[in-house]
Amino acid sequence: MTTSASPEIRAALQQLLDGRWADLRAELRAGLDPETTLLPYEGTLEEQRSRTTTALAGLAGLGLASRDFPPAAGGTNDIGGSCTAFETISALDLSLAVKMGVQFGLFGGAIANLGTQEHHRTLLPAVGAGELLGCFAMTELGHGSDVQSLETTATYDRATGEFVIHSPTRSATKTYIGNAARDGRMAVVFAQLITPDDDSLPEGITDADPTRRGIHALLVPIRDEAGQPLPGVTLGDNGHKGGLLGVDNGTLAFDEVRVPRSALLDRYGQVDAEGRYSSPVDSPGRRFFTMLGTLVRGRVSVGGGASAAARSSLTIATRYADQRSQFAGPDGEVTLLDYRAHQRKLLPAIATSYAFAFAQNELVETLHEVQQADPLERDERNQRELESRAAGLKAVQTEEANRVLQVTREACGGAGFMAGSGITRRRMDADVFATFEGDNTVLLQLVAKGLLTSYSKAIGSLNMTGMLRYGATQFRGVVIERTAAKGFVNRLVEVARRRDIEDVTLDRAWQAECFDFREVHLLETAAQRMRKAQRGTEAEQFAAFNDVQDHLLAAARAHIDRVVFEAFVAGVERAREEHGPELAGLLDQVCDLHSLSVIEGNAAWFLEHEHLRPAKSKAVTASINALCAQLRPHAVTLVDAFGIPDAWLASSLLDGQDDAGIPDRG
Amino acid sequence: MTTSASPEIRAALQQLLDGRWADLRAELRAGLDPETTLLPYEGTLEEQRSRTTTALAGLAGLGLASRDFPPAAGGTNDIGGSCTAFETISALDLSLAVKMGVQFGLFGGAIANLGTQEHHRTLLPAVGAGELLGCFAMTELGHGSDVQSLETTATYDRATGEFVIHSPTRSATKTYIGNAARDGRMAVVFAQLITPDDDSLPEGITDADPTRRGIHALLVPIRDEAGQPLPGVTLGDNGHKGGLLGVDNGTLAFDEVRVPRSALLDRYGQVDAEGRYSSPVDSPGRRFFTMLGTLVRGRVSVGGGASAAARSSLTIATRYADQRSQFAGPDGEVTLLDYRAHQRKLLPAIATSYAFAFAQNELVETLHEVQQADPLERDERNQRELESRAAGLKAVQTEEANRVLQVTREACGGAGFMAGSGITRRRMDADVFATFEGDNTVLLQLVAKGLLTSYSKAIGSLNMTGMLRYGATQFRGVVIERTAAKGFVNRLVEVARRRDIEDVTLDRAWQAECFDFREVHLLETAAQRMRKAQRGTEAEQFAAFNDVQDHLLAAARAHIDRVVFEAFVAGVERAREEHGPELAGLLDQVCDLHSLSVIEGNAAWFLEHEHLRPAKSKAVTASINALCAQLRPHAVTLVDAFGIPDAWLASSLLDGQDDAGIPDRG
Repeated sequence: MTTSASPEIRAALQQLLDGRWADLRAELRAGLDPETTLLPYEGTLEEQRSRTTTALAGLAGLGLASRDFPPAAGGTNDIGGSCTAFETISALDLSLAVKMGVQFGLFGGAIANLGTQEHHRTLLPAVGAGELLGCFAMTELGHGSDVQSLETTATYDRATGEFVIHSPTRSATKTYIGNAARDGRMAVVFAQLITPDDDSLPEGITDADPTRRGIHALLVPIRDEAGQPLPGVTLGDNGHKGGLLGVDNGTLAFDEVRVPRSALLDRYGQVDAEGRYSSPVDSPGRRFFTMLGTLVRGRVSVGGGASAAARSSLTIATRYADQRSQFAGPDGEVTLLDYRAHQRKLLPAIATSYAFAFAQNELVETLHEVQQADPLERDERNQRELESRAAGLKAVQTEEANRVLQVTREACGGAGFMAGSGITRRRMDADVFATFEGDNTVLLQLVAKGLLTSYSKAIGSLNMTGMLRYGATQFRGVVIERTAAKGFVNRLVEVARRRDIEDVTLDRAWQAECFDFREVHLLETAAQRMRKAQRGTEAEQFAAFNDVQDHLLAAARAHIDRVVFEAFVAGVERAREEHGPELAGLLDQVCDLHSLSVIEGNAAWFLEHEHLRPAKSKAVTASINALCAQLRPHAVTLVDAFGIPDAWLASSLLDGQDDAGIPDRG
Repeated sequence: MTTSASPEIRAALQQLLDGRWADLRAELRAGLDPETTLLPYEGTLEEQRSRTTTALAGLAGLGLASRDFPPAAGGTNDIGGSCTAFETISALDLSLAVKMGVQFGLFGGAIANLGTQEHHRTLLPAVGAGELLGCFAMTELGHGSDVQSLETTATYDRATGEFVIHSPTRSATKTYIGNAARDGRMAVVFAQLITPDDDSLPEGITDADPTRRGIHALLVPIRDEAGQPLPGVTLGDNGHKGGLLGVDNGTLAFDEVRVPRSALLDRYGQVDAEGRYSSPVDSPGRRFFTMLGTLVRGRVSVGGGASAAARSSLTIATRYADQRSQFAGPDGEVTLLDYRAHQRKLLPAIATSYAFAFAQNELVETLHEVQQADPLERDERNQRELESRAAGLKAVQTEEANRVLQVTREACGGAGFMAGSGITRRRMDADVFATFEGDNTVLLQLVAKGLLTSYSKAIGSLNMTGMLRYGATQFRGVVIERTAAKGFVNRLVEVARRRDIEDVTLDRAWQAECFDFREVHLLETAAQRMRKAQRGTEAEQFAAFNDVQDHLLAAARAHIDRVVFEAFVAGVERAREEHGPELAGLLDQVCDLHSLSVIEGNAAWFLEHEHLRPAKSKAVTASINALCAQLRPHAVTLVDAFGIPDAWLASSLLDGQDDAGIPDRG
């Protein structure tokens, strides 16, 4: 074992990674007893669920729910704290984090954000205390990512002043709904709202837009106190899953279930007793996105949670690789982490986990700030950028987490496959993070569409001559939205000079230029192709769009890569200001390793576009290898700075016993 | 749904994929009742194990074990059939396949191949009938891949004529051993054999090589009839794992356990009553590799089994994507498989699964032929090449299987995460295939070392001038061992001419040249670097070797990529001869898709080495996209040709009900 053992370095790194809600993290790390939460997946499904439900009750006691609720709903509106809590708990147990997210974030959050005062007053205290467990019933068997196509209906019946909730087809069944199979007593049901059309309204009352009002959310009781389904409600159990066994996902179907008019969460759409519909948001499209926009924190949380699980697993695998030796070397057996192949498995993953931690912290802070304002008064561009970034960071973080969990499992060999390693359960649980809160491919497409919208707005007033005169470089400033690290490229150049760099691949300004070039080029060419795709018949347009799809996804990735890179650079600069050159020097290397890994991963693209020459591309790989070797002595410090308590890792690989069910011998 | 529905095409494809042991595959597909084997991972661990043990007894009834045993041991020596059975059953249930592999292939195979007549006569009938369940106790806590460093000892005690089996340290504990936790009554224990040194031998008896004889295998009873551990044997349970829950992995430790002299499986090393050691193989190194060489079939089986699981999952995901539609297109909602992003997830994976199927069949046939001969009389070069190919194909197939299982899970969205999808269990089970029978990184390194050995033998007699005069192209023939598809490049050129190709990326000769160039270049440069690495102190040599490690792994991959490519090309040519141009034309496209995917995956390397120009590299990607679209109508036919019975897929996604635990509504 050769490790840099400075506790100051570790503490300073942890402070940087913990960020603004460091106190909350510390509180949770000290306050959550893993014994009451973590259970290897060896009990029955009912045991897993029961344990997670009990652990949720413990969390309710910590008052976490109130962070999700706005002051008007008796909460603190500490949205950043809510996301940070989700992330912190995810380092321990994703089932518990998801159960909490369903209860406080989705169920409670929907009531808080889509409901009004009376809903808040009557329900939120019981929701926050974990006494009224509930569901967020959006996804249907027929439609998941495509929310606007949901089939469940909520039809207003003026005769009784009630909404009739109905699942018209089998594919309208709500499914994969957390809390539905076992615990939930109420559900926020997303349904196509239908109000009486003009002809049926009393004389003198008219409404230009008949019948269908789009997706709205309504409160529907689903179980009685004894846990039995209420009349007209059919409940099902999704049963065993690939992971998250502590969460009781189930199905909901409604057979003309009647709820009072007050069941409509009516902040963005009201129906009066006569059945007249009104909304503070005129455009149905904007209304839909405003309603869904309040839910962006779910997506932010999921990305952070997946990364937290990956960090736990990286901590286990890195410490293990620092202890375990195999095959003879010059001085006895060689420690795994001294092999280049092993370094290449773990060190770039550690570097990228740092990058994501900085990017996620920045995203959470932005979310927190943006969502302090009333949704109807928010700056649309900020909100759009936030949603795009949340979608993109969710996609890349969950994808990387799944990759890292598999790599770390393999890096621990057979021992990593034993449940006691602490890796297999995390691997199973994180899997579906690639899917829920939006399929990753759909989300990246969303990012690309957002970029194209900004792009076309920016160039809308320019004709082609103007564009040419503008030139690619200046044009860039118009098009690409900047992160918090404003003007950072200039600073980078300064930094680069300070570092007296011989190897250009370690020049941060050169790296930045690579990220920028890739993003701008992919976006500009995608935009050109999309403009052409807007001609012809509908079928031709679809074919043309489909032909651009992989290009769009690449543009989205390039955008998110640049955002993450800038967040890391900003983090390094903060380290330099707050902790001085030693820490910054270490982080500079970690940042280089991340940046060069992204560039290497896209080397074919850079070479194809002649932005890298062959020799430079090879130099990137050589630099990565050198950085791995340089950072190897710091590897354990780097993962220790994730701050995950040993008891949370719950890994038999780290107790020096390498336990694999070996009994004591008499 | 738009699919090519010709049943003839499907049948012909299946015939090609099923290969030489097609009848055995058909017999197993018809004879194995999935009801008796498959169980979603929702029961207790004991239920899973009990079910798999019962299913194993059913397999014993099919007489599969005798295929593993040589005629002298009452078997048929149908090694190819044994591997094919493992692969076929893996499409249904990896736990059952592994349990069978442990019992017949490893435990039974060790007795058959390392033991002699008396061992065969007394044990194999009960082993083959599944009456005597046993363990293959090789891996220890301290050492897995590095078998030569095992710590367990077997010391001959001349006074009693017994071997004393002992685990001197905690890290000597055998672990992850199948059949050890619950079912096994006997174990083949791999241990350092220790015989009396010369001084203790009776006068007149001498032995030049004292004491340690290297790794040998001995039969050690571990449980009595009642299932209780025998005296001195400590048994442990590895407990819950990340998958393969039907296999009872456990630990074994020995406290001076005495077994008779006849317990030594003594084909390659005998100890007489006086403790004199003798062996038909003089060199200890060669003896070790001869003994382990008989076990190569395990590695061959594991690679094939992982691919079979991936094919099951691909079948589910492809059929699902052909039915499921999402988001509006010009003619209603668009089928998932019509989206380019979805095509790119599934179609190249299908193409590669064809490539692996052909390569695996070729490997199994080679194994079968090579192992018909007595191990001591085998052509060393053939055996070495076989082992290298088995190691490499195991590594790339298990790696790809894990990738594909994750991709297919995600491609089925939330539904794919439900246990009923049939994907999650396969995902969990296949995970550890990357590790057992050799960690993938270690195996690829083995491949590289084999290549370098061949290389240095080939150039041993040439000086540098000779090498230069030889020239890279001719030199190639000396260095690179050819597959069964001899002289294939010439034939490729002919084929290419017949196809009247405009797009050079579809020219098979051009593709072949890419594969060859990459392999030769990586190998030659690796050899140069390794030669330099052999200078200096031991520490310098290790540092230099470590510096080349990623280069060696890349060379191994390039070699295996070329082997797989050639096997696919040979398969297409066989299709052309046996089934005519229509089928060959379809397979040509599938082969193109596979080949270009490999080239695209290594595009950065080709560009760095200026073997691809930027425009050509972009053309490769364009061709892949075009091939995906062209093959899309055939996607379901291509996966149906895998021949996996619907009942084996056991997927709720394919019954038109998309079942996710939804109860019927009254």
